[in-house]
Amino acid sequence: MNFIEKYEKARDEKNSIISVGLDPLLDNMKLKEKPTDMEKISELFFNFCMELIDNTGDYACAIKPNTQFILFPLTLNQIKKINKRAHDYGLVSILDHKLGDIGSTNASALYWIKQAGFDALTFSPFAGNIKEATKQAHAQGLGLICLTLMSNPDSVWVQKEAMSNGMPLYEKIAHEIKNSDADGCVVGATGHVTDENIKKIRTIVGNDRVFLCPGIGAQGGDIKKILRNAGKNILIHVGRSIMYADDQKKAAEEFCNLINNYR
Amino acid sequence: MNFIEKYEKARDEKNSIISVGLDPLLDNMKLKEKPTDMEKISELFFNFCMELIDNTGDYACAIKPNTQFILFPLTLNQIKKINKRAHDYGLVSILDHKLGDIGSTNASALYWIKQAGFDALTFSPFAGNIKEATKQAHAQGLGLICLTLMSNPDSVWVQKEAMSNGMPLYEKIAHEIKNSDADGCVVGATGHVTDENIKKIRTIVGNDRVFLCPGIGAQGGDIKKILRNAGKNILIHVGRSIMYADDQKKAAEEFCNLINNYR
Repeated sequence: MNFIEKYEKARDEKNSIISVGLDPLLDNMKLKEKPTDMEKISELFFNFCMELIDNTGDYACAIKPNTQFILFPLTLNQIKKINKRAHDYGLVSILDHKLGDIGSTNASALYWIKQAGFDALTFSPFAGNIKEATKQAHAQGLGLICLTLMSNPDSVWVQKEAMSNGMPLYEKIAHEIKNSDADGCVVGATGHVTDENIKKIRTIVGNDRVFLCPGIGAQGGDIKKILRNAGKNILIHVGRSIMYADDQKKAAEEFCNLINNYR
Repeated sequence: MNFIEKYEKARDEKNSIISVGLDPLLDNMKLKEKPTDMEKISELFFNFCMELIDNTGDYACAIKPNTQFILFPLTLNQIKKINKRAHDYGLVSILDHKLGDIGSTNASALYWIKQAGFDALTFSPFAGNIKEATKQAHAQGLGLICLTLMSNPDSVWVQKEAMSNGMPLYEKIAHEIKNSDADGCVVGATGHVTDENIKKIRTIVGNDRVFLCPGIGAQGGDIKKILRNAGKNILIHVGRSIMYADDQKKAAEEFCNLINNYR
């Protein structure tokens, strides 16, 4: 199975299009005392991720840990166990890595991401290389999901205002994704991202590619805006609103039902 | 001392502007047998990095490990020891991380990069956020070096052909670097990057910012092209040509002398 097929299987079997964030941060955890010892932090973060999967695994389709939260404090073996747990629940696991290097360096990253047990990774197209990196990812059996249009305000001057071949850079990126067989796009759902932007990207890349849409929950994203424009193959990513809810299980169930009511 | 001052001290004390790559890859090591056990690989990579510093520390100004080679196989404690060793030689240590996320995620990365003992990191401006991330990095005592113009062929359609405010995207990025107090720029030295491109970036950002120039050695960069256009505050990064030389010490000494003869 390629990544799109793995995603579709998980989505249909779990009846969910939710992706859950696994981004442990000491400041956000309700701790009596913050550990300073590295091994204790590592163990705490590992347990946080495992419990989060146990609490949300029935209501999600995917997990998406971000490199900037897990890769320094956790070991490769811990990450392997986290991915195994996610797979036991029938979820796909995407590393939000925003890889964007030259060929030989990307190859090293993809090797380790595969070793760690992920199904896919996110990719940043600043250095181009979408076609090359997709080929390298597919050779490892990994899916590649390329940043296309982000929702943070300061991304506008790069992704929307910069023009390439007579079109905004994000549209040019969407064409590159289409032509390169990449498995999906990261498309923001809030702020400056309009219905028309989302529709435009879907039209360019086609119906099969997976839209990974962050910005829901604590980041205030618009679920309906995604659902009415982004087609069927979508992952709605919920980070802090599930991760740091008083009751993770309840929060995940509520998000899942809310979204399923709309789609 | 801020990062630019740390760099200038190292450069003057070591009489070198070389940055050495620490990018361990099993395929490139001359091994009788490739280990498969994770702990053995970890130990092998750690020793490789420590020996590389011992062999090149007298002829370099900086080390620059790339996240995609070291962050999966090495532990945070191993990386701390590597940075301590580099500091013992009077070198600055830059993590080639190409960070490019939103604020709260960048904050987590910067926290861990500081914990690991680095002096600076590279940053990718695809999501904008140069000003915000520089402020966050400086609050941690870290320098931020922003990708500006890379030399790989496929970066052209993003960095050179895309136009923002009537100028190529890389020039717009250079202005953002200038306005944001970022500590430096990554500027490629080979392929499509011309004398005029390098000169233009230096003119925009001013004389103090550090130019980190990869592409020398195995990647075939043009040392003279950098030296005649990039000013005084530069780091010439040498990767595979030192890392995988039969005699790392001799290779580092030769690169150092060659570059010092030109500057």
